[in-house]
Amino acid sequence: MTNNTITSPKGFLAAGVRAGIKKSGKPDLGLLSCPAGATAAAVFTTNQITSAAVEVSRRHIRSRKVFAVVVNSGNANACTGKRGIQNAIAMCRHTAGLVACEWARGVLVASTGIIGEPLPMDKVTSGIAAATGRLSTTSSAGLDFATAIMTTDTRPKQAVRRLEISGTKVTIAGAVKGAGMIGPNMATTLCFMTTDVAIRKPLLAMALKEAIGNSLNKLTVDGHQSTNDTAILLASGRAGNRPIVARCPRYTRFAMALADLCDDLARQMALDAEGATRMFKVVVRGAANRADAAKAARAVADYPLVKCAVHGGDPNWGRIICAVGSTDVRLNPGRLSCRLDDLTVFRNGAPCTFDPKRASRIILQTFHTITVDLGIGTSSDFCYGVDLSKDYVTINADYHT
Amino acid sequence: MTNNTITSPKGFLAAGVRAGIKKSGKPDLGLLSCPAGATAAAVFTTNQITSAAVEVSRRHIRSRKVFAVVVNSGNANACTGKRGIQNAIAMCRHTAGLVACEWARGVLVASTGIIGEPLPMDKVTSGIAAATGRLSTTSSAGLDFATAIMTTDTRPKQAVRRLEISGTKVTIAGAVKGAGMIGPNMATTLCFMTTDVAIRKPLLAMALKEAIGNSLNKLTVDGHQSTNDTAILLASGRAGNRPIVARCPRYTRFAMALADLCDDLARQMALDAEGATRMFKVVVRGAANRADAAKAARAVADYPLVKCAVHGGDPNWGRIICAVGSTDVRLNPGRLSCRLDDLTVFRNGAPCTFDPKRASRIILQTFHTITVDLGIGTSSDFCYGVDLSKDYVTINADYHT
Repeated sequence: MTNNTITSPKGFLAAGVRAGIKKSGKPDLGLLSCPAGATAAAVFTTNQITSAAVEVSRRHIRSRKVFAVVVNSGNANACTGKRGIQNAIAMCRHTAGLVACEWARGVLVASTGIIGEPLPMDKVTSGIAAATGRLSTTSSAGLDFATAIMTTDTRPKQAVRRLEISGTKVTIAGAVKGAGMIGPNMATTLCFMTTDVAIRKPLLAMALKEAIGNSLNKLTVDGHQSTNDTAILLASGRAGNRPIVARCPRYTRFAMALADLCDDLARQMALDAEGATRMFKVVVRGAANRADAAKAARAVADYPLVKCAVHGGDPNWGRIICAVGSTDVRLNPGRLSCRLDDLTVFRNGAPCTFDPKRASRIILQTFHTITVDLGIGTSSDFCYGVDLSKDYVTINADYHT
Repeated sequence: MTNNTITSPKGFLAAGVRAGIKKSGKPDLGLLSCPAGATAAAVFTTNQITSAAVEVSRRHIRSRKVFAVVVNSGNANACTGKRGIQNAIAMCRHTAGLVACEWARGVLVASTGIIGEPLPMDKVTSGIAAATGRLSTTSSAGLDFATAIMTTDTRPKQAVRRLEISGTKVTIAGAVKGAGMIGPNMATTLCFMTTDVAIRKPLLAMALKEAIGNSLNKLTVDGHQSTNDTAILLASGRAGNRPIVARCPRYTRFAMALADLCDDLARQMALDAEGATRMFKVVVRGAANRADAAKAARAVADYPLVKCAVHGGDPNWGRIICAVGSTDVRLNPGRLSCRLDDLTVFRNGAPCTFDPKRASRIILQTFHTITVDLGIGTSSDFCYGVDLSKDYVTINADYHT
C-alpha cells in the first residue's frame, strides 16, 4: 500500500497514542521525529494572545535543526500563565531526552483544545514516552499521528504530493486538524508537513509562507484565528536532490507543489469544519486593490446570513451584496455584479432574471463559487467559506462541559 | 387604557393594514401621519448599498416639515435599480396626495424584506389608500403600525417615555422592527419615533444621532447593517413647551429621555433577534482609546463561538480572550482580565479558580455582562450581543423560498 501520510517523505517517523488528556479517551498525543535533524519553517497565529506552545515554538524554530515535534490535543495550554510556558518547555525537554536530541530547543511543540486549563503533565509525559516507543515510518503510524491531533474533527485529514525535481523524486506530505475557531490569517489550527527535499532554511520559510497565505489563510469558518494556530514544515533533505539554494525554477517547482498540497489540506478542513455540509469560494474581482478584494471576499464568507443561505440552498444573493456593501471597500454601486458559478444573478446594480431552481442546484453542490465584481478596478482575491448549520450550534454550545 | 404607542405624543395618527405584499397575508403596510407637519430627523444605514427607500428618504428628510411616513414590510426595495427609485418616489407621491400634503418631499418612506425583487406597486398603492382610511390616534392604531413593520420579528416592539420639561408634559414614543441583519453602525433595520416636544431641527437631529449611537448602533446580531436601516424621529411641537433652541438643560433632559427610549428599543430588538434566547452586554475597559474598546467589544459580541457558548450556558471564557486577541487593538497580555457579571474568571493573563455552576447560572440569565479589561489604558465602550441558536439557522436557511 502506498504511504500517503506524513511518514512518506524519507527520514520521518511518527506515532499517535492515547495519553488520557481527553476525557473521551480518544488519541490525544502525537509525535513526529526526524532522527537526522530537519530544516524547519513555521507560521504561527496572528492572534495577540498566543498559547504557551506557540510562544515556545516561536523560539525553538530559530534552531538550525529540528529533531521532533510533539503535539497534544484536548488542551490548548493557552491563557495558562507562566505555568503554561513551563509545561510547554517541559514537553520539549522530555521529548528531547527520549529522541536523543541534545537540546529542548531542537523540539517544537503544539497544543489544541480547551483554553485556560493547566496541562495534566503526568499524562502528557507518560504519553510522550509511549509515543516514542511506537515511532515508526509506516503509514499506520502516520495515520495515528493525524488522528491524535484531532479535536472536533470527524476524520483525519492528510495529503501527499510527489514530484520530480531535476530527475530526483521528492515527496511532500501533510496532516492537518481544523474544525473550528478558524479565520483568515492563519486559518490553520494545527498543520504539520514533512518533505525530503534538500533546501535552504530561508527558502523553505518563504515557500511555506506563500503556500499558507493562499490556502489555509484564505479559509474562514467562524472569523477568528485561534490562540494556537501553527503550521510547521520539516525538510529532511534525504531525497538526494541537489540542494535548492536560490529562487530558481527548482524552487518554484517545489513551492508550487507545496501550495497545491496546502490548498488540498485547506479544502479538507473546510469540508470537515464544525457542522459544515458544504463549502464555497468567494472570488472578488474588479477591486481597486488586492486588500479591498480580500476584505470584501472575507465579509461575504463570514456573513452568517450568507452561510445560512448556502446551507439552505437558497439563492438569496441580496445578502451577498449586503455583506459587500457593509465594508468600506471602494465599489461602484452601478457596476456591481454577482455570479453563482456561471449564473449571473445581479448585473450592473440591478437584479437579473434567472431560474431559481438552477441557482439552488449550484448552491447545493459540495463546492461552488460566488463571484462578485466591484466594478471599480482590476484587482482580485478570494476566500473559502463554509455553510452554517444547526450542528455548528450543537457542537459549540456545549464544548466545554 | 394608557396609550403606549407612537400615537401617544400629541399630533400623530397611525395605521397598519394587510396590503398583500407578504405571501403570508400578514400586515405589511404602515402609515404614520402628522397633519400639521413635524420637524424631522433621521439616521440611515452606513452600508454602501442602500435601498431605494433610503435614497429617497435621505433627500426628503431635508424638507422643513414632514407630514407622513409610509412603510412596507415583505419587500426591501433594495438592489432594484432605477425602477426601485421610481417606486419609492411613487409611494411618497401617492401618500402625499391622500394625506393632503402638497409635495411628495413631505413624505418619508421605508421598506424592509427580501432584497432584489420589484415592489408590487398595485398592492402597495391600494394598501396606502386603505391605511389612510384607518388613520387614528388610538393605541390600537399605533399597535397596528408596529405590527405592520415586522418581518421575522415575533412580536411588536414599542416603548414610551413621559417627562416634564419646565413644567410641561412631553411624550416620546417609538416602534421598532429588528430580528436579523443587524450590525453596529445602524443596528436598526427600522425605527420610528414620535414626540410632541417643540425643538429646532438641528437639535432634534443631534439628540437622535447621540441616542442611536449609544443604543441601536451598539447592537450586533449578525455583524452587518442592512441596506435599509432607517431611524426616523418626528417632533410635532404640540406639547406646548417653550421651544428648545439651544443645548440647554431642557435639551439635555429631552436627549436623555430619548436615549433611554432608544436603549429600551435596542434591548427589545436583541431579545427578539432571530433565534435569540438571551442577550449580553460586552463592556471593554482599560483600552488605549474608545475606538479600540468599541472594536474589541464588537469582536466578542460577534464571535460565533462566544454566541454559542452563551446559548449553551457554557463559561468558555477562552473564546472571549481569543476574540479580543484576534483584533489589532492595543492590549497588555499580562494585565488582561475578564469577568462574567461580578465573577472574575481570568485575571492578569492567568485563569482564576471559580465555580463553573455559578458561572453557568450567570450566563443563562436573560441578560448578563461580560467585562474585559485590556490593561493598557483608561477608555471604555460596550456592545450588545445575542446568543446563536439552531433557530437562527432554521429561520435563515429558508427565508427566501
